[in-house]
Amino acid sequence: MDLTARMVLLRSLPFFGGLPETRLTRLAAGAAVSSHAPGALIAGRDREGDAFYVVASGRARIFRMDREGREQTLYVLGPGEPFCLCSLVDAGEPPALAAALEPARVLAFPARALAEATREDPEVLFDLLKLLCRRLKEAMAMIESLALRDLPGRVAAFLLHQAAAAQPGQGAGQQVRLAVSQRELAKIVGATPEALSRVLRHLSEAGLLTVKGRDVTLRDRAGLAREAGLTPEGV
Amino acid sequence: MDLTARMVLLRSLPFFGGLPETRLTRLAAGAAVSSHAPGALIAGRDREGDAFYVVASGRARIFRMDREGREQTLYVLGPGEPFCLCSLVDAGEPPALAAALEPARVLAFPARALAEATREDPEVLFDLLKLLCRRLKEAMAMIESLALRDLPGRVAAFLLHQAAAAQPGQGAGQQVRLAVSQRELAKIVGATPEALSRVLRHLSEAGLLTVKGRDVTLRDRAGLAREAGLTPEGV
Repeated sequence: MDLTARMVLLRSLPFFGGLPETRLTRLAAGAAVSSHAPGALIAGRDREGDAFYVVASGRARIFRMDREGREQTLYVLGPGEPFCLCSLVDAGEPPALAAALEPARVLAFPARALAEATREDPEVLFDLLKLLCRRLKEAMAMIESLALRDLPGRVAAFLLHQAAAAQPGQGAGQQVRLAVSQRELAKIVGATPEALSRVLRHLSEAGLLTVKGRDVTLRDRAGLAREAGLTPEGV
Repeated sequence: MDLTARMVLLRSLPFFGGLPETRLTRLAAGAAVSSHAPGALIAGRDREGDAFYVVASGRARIFRMDREGREQTLYVLGPGEPFCLCSLVDAGEPPALAAALEPARVLAFPARALAEATREDPEVLFDLLKLLCRRLKEAMAMIESLALRDLPGRVAAFLLHQAAAAQPGQGAGQQVRLAVSQRELAKIVGATPEALSRVLRHLSEAGLLTVKGRDVTLRDRAGLAREAGLTPEGV
């Protein structure tokens, strides 16, 4: 990944958009590029929390892992999306791990490079605040979903959300390509792969959807919305 | 609440600590003070997201509510703790509601007053980033707990966390005063009051704790740690 490609990627980030060319060049030149196979850890627990990252290509997932090795995915991030932003303000243990979901290239920046950029242009801090607020809102929505919806409800909410993001306003029969395998989806909706498989079969038998590998066809959006506890008009 | 008391409260906030006296006086003078009975809504969905708040006395909880009116508490905040910080950068629908847990007094500031303060002293933005990172970490921990722990595990983790915060390093027999009623605790651990009551009885019968109203005595910390899936040394 040459300097020009790095510059283009950096320029596309909302919080770096306004930086002067010289600063951006310095940031791009100081970044480390790494490639990761699917499933490979990008940022683990033992790192010193002194770098932040941007997905250059492919996708990464941010997740928590408990003592038994069970995982819960918090975010799935694509090209141009940054992570480990808290390294800017907090040198403590990183709150989550990052791994590649598919072959991924990632840029890593020393946290102090970001700190220097914010001193040059405080607008960067403002944009970082915006990004953290968005991530916090997504986390709050996930907490509500885990606490108040049963598993079929969480799966229905996830599918309707994916459908809305892909082709807003489509009707029944809309096909949604799962961005992840069912195995990875299980870690997003907080279930074992077996439980997720049972729920997809149940939703399918109830006529709400049909599943073929990663392709899910939504047959009854109102029914899925009821399952998710959402207002039908809203989906 | 007179101007001096407001100034003392504002000065105690990490992100306002460094502001010049004139700015702080202006902020304090422009704040609206309100009192709330237990359970009363402080900030709802229909507000315009154009204010941020600081708890002056008592406690408030930040929560999500679904269409059926079921609630999940995200944060319990005491004196000096701010909320609705995203109003600074995001005019959209507020991501959560706020209500008084006990008689509470709250200061409300127009979001633009905070924006002006950040222009005067960009350090304010840096401190706000720190705070948002802390809240995001807490949200991530809650997601892990909801997704990967069963209800007894979540209750055990909550009690050990409360105990560590109150008197770190205490041994068996330590008494923990629940900061909230069992009814409110149920909304924190993601359970119905009935399910929580059953779990407390089960943990009590297993000799791990004894409950008397809001007072919980931890009888077997290692056992509680096992229940929570935590390393015994870490609690």
